[in-house]
Amino acid sequence: MTERTLHLNAFLMGVGHHEAAWRHPRADPAAIADVRHYQELARIAERGRLDSVFLADGLALWGNVRHNALGVLEPLTLLAALATVTEHIGLIATVSTTYNEPFHVARKFASLDHISGGRAGWNIVTSASEAEAHNFGVERPAHGDRYARAAEFLEVVTKLWDSWEDGAILNERDTGTYADTGRIHTLDHVGAHFRVRGPLNTSRPPQGHPLLVQAGSSEDGKEFAARFAEAVFTAQQTLQEGQEFYADLKSRLSRYGRRDDDLLVLPGISPIIGSTEREARALERELEELIIPEYGVQQLSNILGVDLSGHPLDAPLPEVTQPADGQQSRFKLVTDLARRERLTLRQLVGRLAGGRGHRVVTGTPEQIADQIQEWFTSGAADGFNIMPPVLPSGLADFVDHVVPELQVRGLFRTEYEGRTLRQNYGLARPASRFEQFKQKVSVAS
Amino acid sequence: MTERTLHLNAFLMGVGHHEAAWRHPRADPAAIADVRHYQELARIAERGRLDSVFLADGLALWGNVRHNALGVLEPLTLLAALATVTEHIGLIATVSTTYNEPFHVARKFASLDHISGGRAGWNIVTSASEAEAHNFGVERPAHGDRYARAAEFLEVVTKLWDSWEDGAILNERDTGTYADTGRIHTLDHVGAHFRVRGPLNTSRPPQGHPLLVQAGSSEDGKEFAARFAEAVFTAQQTLQEGQEFYADLKSRLSRYGRRDDDLLVLPGISPIIGSTEREARALERELEELIIPEYGVQQLSNILGVDLSGHPLDAPLPEVTQPADGQQSRFKLVTDLARRERLTLRQLVGRLAGGRGHRVVTGTPEQIADQIQEWFTSGAADGFNIMPPVLPSGLADFVDHVVPELQVRGLFRTEYEGRTLRQNYGLARPASRFEQFKQKVSVAS
Repeated sequence: MTERTLHLNAFLMGVGHHEAAWRHPRADPAAIADVRHYQELARIAERGRLDSVFLADGLALWGNVRHNALGVLEPLTLLAALATVTEHIGLIATVSTTYNEPFHVARKFASLDHISGGRAGWNIVTSASEAEAHNFGVERPAHGDRYARAAEFLEVVTKLWDSWEDGAILNERDTGTYADTGRIHTLDHVGAHFRVRGPLNTSRPPQGHPLLVQAGSSEDGKEFAARFAEAVFTAQQTLQEGQEFYADLKSRLSRYGRRDDDLLVLPGISPIIGSTEREARALERELEELIIPEYGVQQLSNILGVDLSGHPLDAPLPEVTQPADGQQSRFKLVTDLARRERLTLRQLVGRLAGGRGHRVVTGTPEQIADQIQEWFTSGAADGFNIMPPVLPSGLADFVDHVVPELQVRGLFRTEYEGRTLRQNYGLARPASRFEQFKQKVSVAS
Repeated sequence: MTERTLHLNAFLMGVGHHEAAWRHPRADPAAIADVRHYQELARIAERGRLDSVFLADGLALWGNVRHNALGVLEPLTLLAALATVTEHIGLIATVSTTYNEPFHVARKFASLDHISGGRAGWNIVTSASEAEAHNFGVERPAHGDRYARAAEFLEVVTKLWDSWEDGAILNERDTGTYADTGRIHTLDHVGAHFRVRGPLNTSRPPQGHPLLVQAGSSEDGKEFAARFAEAVFTAQQTLQEGQEFYADLKSRLSRYGRRDDDLLVLPGISPIIGSTEREARALERELEELIIPEYGVQQLSNILGVDLSGHPLDAPLPEVTQPADGQQSRFKLVTDLARRERLTLRQLVGRLAGGRGHRVVTGTPEQIADQIQEWFTSGAADGFNIMPPVLPSGLADFVDHVVPELQVRGLFRTEYEGRTLRQNYGLARPASRFEQFKQKVSVAS
C-alpha cells in the first residue's frame, strides 16, 4: 500500500480495560493467569489483521486487589508463548529501564525477535511509582534521572543488538569457521549509568532492532520519544488535544534527524460496541453499575497522587495540587476532564473506569469507525491503541465489526504487508552501526 | 510408582554438546536460533517420558565463536515458547543470582509456572566469569560473596512466591471481592544484599515454588545445594567419584532438616549411541575428527583458568596451578582426568570435547543402560542429565533406544506420574510460609 493507512494495536489487559470487567458476565477472571486466554486474544487480533498486541506492565502490585482482578503474567515470558501460536502479529512487551540491566533487556528482546521471526517490540517505561522502587531496595528516583538513565540504557541496548553485524555468521562447516569474529564487536561502553563490554551472546535480531515504543507524555517523555521511539501510545481526550500532541511530537523529530513518518502516534481508545447505539449504551451502563466506588476513588487518588478517600462522592472534584514527581501529563488530563465537564467525584470515577484516562467511545461499529477516521484524517493519529472494555468479547467485536468497516472505507489493510512488525508498521530496518561499509537503511529485510 | 525409579533430564544445548557438533552432517547449525528446533527437542524428550528439559546459560559470549556455533536464545523466553507445544515435560532455565534482582526472577519463574501449568524449574547459578561481570559494569565478585548473595536471593524469591497464599483469590463477582488481601503479604525483607517490600504482582505459582536446581560442586556450592536445591546437576567421571559426591551431598541435608529424597543427584552423561559398538565408535571418531584443536585448547584454558595456547599438543598437560577464584571443582576434575589417564593435551581436548568434563559413554543402547543402571543402583545417582553429542539425532536415539531398555528393566516410567514437574520428580509442593494455619506439605497439589 502506498496510501497512508491506519495502524491498530490491541492493548491486552487481563479480562478487560474497564475496572469492573472482571465482574461482568462476559469475562472469566480465572483467565488472567491462563496462557490460553492470551493466545485466544492474539489469534483474534491476528484474524483482524491488527499490527500488534501489547502488554502493559508494572513492577509492583498496583491498585486494590480486593476489588479488581490483578496479578498478571510477566509480559516477555507471556509473549514468547503467544509467538508460537501466531504468524503475523507484532508482540510488544513493556519493560522498565529503571530496574533492569541493558544486557538482560537486549538479550530477551533479541530472543523474542528470533522466536517470533521478527515480531518483537519494546514499550520502554521508566517506572514512576514508589511501590516499584521499594521492590528494588531504592527510593523513587527523580523524573529527570529516570529519563537520563533511560537514554543511556537505549544507547547500550541498541549497540548490543548491533554488536553482531548481519553477515557475521558464516556457518562454513568445511573450514570450521562458524562466524567472522571481525564482524562481532565489543562495545566497551562506559557512561554515567552503565559500563558494558559486550558483545551480546545472541545474534542480531531479525528486525535489526525490535520496534521501540514509548508512552510518556511529559516534557522529558516527549523528547525521549522524539529521539528513540517508533510508535507512541498516548492518552488524549479531545480531538484538539490529540492534534496538539500529534503536532508537538512530530515537530520534535527533526532535531534528531528523523522524519515525520519515522514515528507513529497511536492514541488509546476504549470502544464500547453495540449493534445499535442503544445496545452499546446498555453495555456501558452494565459496566458502570459494577464499579465499586471505593476502588475507583483509590485509583483516582493514585493517578492524581492525592488522597481523595474522605471526599463526598457526589460533590465536585476538590481543588488538588499536582505532586512534585508524579505522572504529570495524566494529572492534567484528569483534572482538565473534571473541570471541563463539571463532573462529580462519582462521575469522574465512572469516566476513568473505562480506560484510566484514555478516551471511551460508545456506539455502533460505524460510529466508532467515524471517530477513528476523524482523528486519523485530522492530524491527531496515525492509528490507535485499542483497549476493549471486556476481553475477549470486546476485542472480537472490534475485529469482527469495526475492522471490516475500516477496511471498506480503505483505511485499513485486508492482508499483512510484510512478515515483520517493522514491515507492517512501515518502518525501516536499521543497519548495524558497526557495519564497516555504511549501508543505507531499507524497509525490506 | 512406589519403587525407586530413575529421573532423566534432557540437557538441550544448541545443535549438540560435542563442541564439533555443528560441523557434523546430522546437525543444522542454522537451528541454534530457531524455536522450532527446540520445540522438536522438547517433543522428543516428552515422547520418551523424560522428566524435564534444561537450558544452560551464561551472560557473555563464551568460547570462540569463530570455531563454534554460539550465541543462543535466553532460556526463560525460549522455555515459554516450548511450554505451549508440550503438556508434561518440565522446563528448567538457568538464571543467575549475581546479576539479577529477586523480584524479576520470582516473577518470571512464577509466570513460566503458570504458563506451563506447573512445569517450571530454576537452575540457580552465581556467574563465576570475568566476561559476565564486565557486561554488568562490575569486577568479578569473590566466590563466597556470590554464594552469600545467592542465599539471600533464594530467601527473597521464595518469600515472593509465598506472598500470595494458595487460597488468596476468592473471585466473588457478586460482592465485588476478588482477593482476600489478608492472605496477600508484604515481605518487608531487609538484608545485606536486598530490600524488597513485596508482595509479588503475580499470584502463587501452581507448584508453590518452581523446582530449585543447582550445579555447583565447590564446598560453597554443595552447602548451598544441601540447603536449597531439589535436584543437582553434577559432573563426575568415575563411579567412585560419583559415589563420593552423592554420599557427601546427601549427608549434608540433615543439617537443614531435609531428608535424602528431598534432593535428587543427576550426574551428566553424554551418550554416543550406535546400534552396534562399532557404529557408536565410528560416530565418536567422526566427531573427534571434526574437532579444531586450537578451539579445544582455548576451551581447556578457560576451564582451568590457565593459558595453554603455546603448549605443544602432543606433550602431556603441563603442571598448572589452580587460580584463586575459578571453577574449583571443574579444575580438579580435569587435572585428575589428565593425570589418571596420562593424556596429552590433544587427547585431553578430545576427551573434553564431548561433554566439557561430563562423562562420555559410547556404546549400544544396552551398554549405555548398563552404565546408567550401575550408577543408579550403586549409590552414585538418582538419575541422569542427558547431554546428547549431536541434536536432535542424539536425543532421538536416546529416547527411542535407551529409554525402552530402561523401561524393560523397570528402571524408568512408561507414563508420567503427575501433571507438574514436582510430581514427576516425586517432590513435595511447599505450602506458603505465610499460611496462618500451618499445613503439612503434601505431594499432591
